[in-house]
Amino acid sequence: MESTGQTTLTISSRNYSSWSMRGWLLAKLSGLAFDTVSVPIDAASRAELLLLSPSILVPCLTHDGNAVWDTLAIAEYLNEIRPQARLLPEGRHARAHCRSICGEMHSGFSALRSALPMNLRAHFPGFRIWSRAQHDIQRIVTIWHECLAAYGGPWLFGAEIGIADAMYAPVVTRFLTYDVKLEPEIAEYCMRVLAHPFVAEWIDAAKAEQEDIDELDMEF
Amino acid sequence: MESTGQTTLTISSRNYSSWSMRGWLLAKLSGLAFDTVSVPIDAASRAELLLLSPSILVPCLTHDGNAVWDTLAIAEYLNEIRPQARLLPEGRHARAHCRSICGEMHSGFSALRSALPMNLRAHFPGFRIWSRAQHDIQRIVTIWHECLAAYGGPWLFGAEIGIADAMYAPVVTRFLTYDVKLEPEIAEYCMRVLAHPFVAEWIDAAKAEQEDIDELDMEF
Repeated sequence: MESTGQTTLTISSRNYSSWSMRGWLLAKLSGLAFDTVSVPIDAASRAELLLLSPSILVPCLTHDGNAVWDTLAIAEYLNEIRPQARLLPEGRHARAHCRSICGEMHSGFSALRSALPMNLRAHFPGFRIWSRAQHDIQRIVTIWHECLAAYGGPWLFGAEIGIADAMYAPVVTRFLTYDVKLEPEIAEYCMRVLAHPFVAEWIDAAKAEQEDIDELDMEF
Repeated sequence: MESTGQTTLTISSRNYSSWSMRGWLLAKLSGLAFDTVSVPIDAASRAELLLLSPSILVPCLTHDGNAVWDTLAIAEYLNEIRPQARLLPEGRHARAHCRSICGEMHSGFSALRSALPMNLRAHFPGFRIWSRAQHDIQRIVTIWHECLAAYGGPWLFGAEIGIADAMYAPVVTRFLTYDVKLEPEIAEYCMRVLAHPFVAEWIDAAKAEQEDIDELDMEF
């Protein structure tokens, strides 16, 4: 990754921290050059792993003397400084729609978050999903259906990947990890997200982290 | 309230729904003319009252053919259509700071939300606050201190009330309801928020709702 000497994105676990993944994808999609700084999961991600909320430590974007420590705030900041990346849809109607579903992801879906935590290295075939999480899944599928129908795909808001796709990318990985059964249009959207170079890069790095830890465990 | 025939804000309980209060304050601060539509608390606010998350039903702003159903999305939408209201701070640094703390409120403070739910008609002197909620309170006090010091008050981002004050206004009411002990600078900020005409109007309406229900109970 190109070193900028000052622009950094602080993240925690690539495997478990869905907020880190969102922040990193947003920064990559913006085209900004940045260094990734990883902090130990014990120090930074405990709150998230306890299924509470994102912390002020991760993700945190430091750029041009500004510290931005909330994922949606990072998205709006990147949209301001990199308008050419078109992270938000161009039309006001689509933009309002986009921010509404990003807000839903940001503050909602607590049943999904607690029952199906992000875990990129795991796979649970036939995982049993309780009813409240199922309700969240149905709502997310509805959101995606409405977006794909309204803007024509292949991404949630049309021809270009953007903020909404990044916000929902960790959900896509959960659907894969927990073997969630999906109808074809939605399954295809999920495959598209997983095949995106930045998403693939993140997942590969998460899997590599595990190998390091395994080796460490074998040493000691 | 001036009738516009088309611009509406859908809310639920004025007494219990902190997200409704935020959305309504934001709409009022924007200067937009709108009708308030109240939906029964059973239908719309169950999720919020169960301390889960804001629903897609409330608050929901309908304007110019757009439906915006998340509080932060409503804030950004109002900022776009009513820039003269200066809901967001003018400088990029302050704006990033503002969005970061609004994001924290939007997705965090789950202990505070569950232990000290908004209840404008209640007062609990000497209320015992458990440690996780106390941690949230301390973080909020730190946020307010930093803002008042950095931008000089009297509002969180300087001379004019804005999005951040609206996002934290329900917290102010909780501090009053649950008798939270505060240092003078913070207590003064709380009094300032409570004395704001829109906040006072909302609280008065919440108390009036209770009287209606009481009368109804007496009738039947």
